[in-house]
Amino acid sequence: MKDLDHIGIAVADLEQAIDTYERLLDTECYKRETVEQQQVETAFFQTGGSKVELLGATHSESVIARYIARKGEGMHHVAFEVDDIHAELKRLKAEGFTPLSEEPSRGADNKLVAFVHPRDSHGVLVELCQSID
Amino acid sequence: MKDLDHIGIAVADLEQAIDTYERLLDTECYKRETVEQQQVETAFFQTGGSKVELLGATHSESVIARYIARKGEGMHHVAFEVDDIHAELKRLKAEGFTPLSEEPSRGADNKLVAFVHPRDSHGVLVELCQSID
Repeated sequence: MKDLDHIGIAVADLEQAIDTYERLLDTECYKRETVEQQQVETAFFQTGGSKVELLGATHSESVIARYIARKGEGMHHVAFEVDDIHAELKRLKAEGFTPLSEEPSRGADNKLVAFVHPRDSHGVLVELCQSID
Repeated sequence: MKDLDHIGIAVADLEQAIDTYERLLDTECYKRETVEQQQVETAFFQTGGSKVELLGATHSESVIARYIARKGEGMHHVAFEVDDIHAELKRLKAEGFTPLSEEPSRGADNKLVAFVHPRDSHGVLVELCQSID
């Protein structure tokens, strides 16, 4: 697990945040995508070899809505690209890290994703992601 | 401003965090550096085209110690590489963003750095950095 794929930022108002980040990064949002299962709408910006992903809740019970209610807007997770997400989860479990689920799920951007508990990584929610061919 | 250079993670115990991130990322910390002015010790990991920077306080009044006291360990900032930090600060000010200082300062990793207030970027502390030749 080595390449930083993207950072995810939890925002209260996705439209407003897209406008802000287009001006901040001086680049246009190149993709928007809703992930129904996670009740989030995402917006992506290319930032060199990695991306910024804005995350807005589509429902008041969304994980993003609950995150913002607890902690406010801000950085939500950092994602690293892996070649084999199942092998990487196995390796991390053997190293003592705690996956948030036993199996990867379908995320945004045509990827399989899995998360590691932030208590194991000094408060950082770490996502593993594997592109689906 | 486009390339994501690194993410900065505030940690309470740098030695322990280096061990954790070496196991998490499956790569060795390649550089450690103290930035006296900011009272932080940093540790870097290469993650593809970008880096992970761990930040530990060297003094109880360090900005990192105060951040952890207020918010706990976790993601502290995201840094974007720029070619001309003065021009980029000027552009961002014209767009309504608020720099945390008028002039860039010397940061870790042989860079000039400047920060934008997180209230302007949905809770994210954004760093601009320019490599010093």
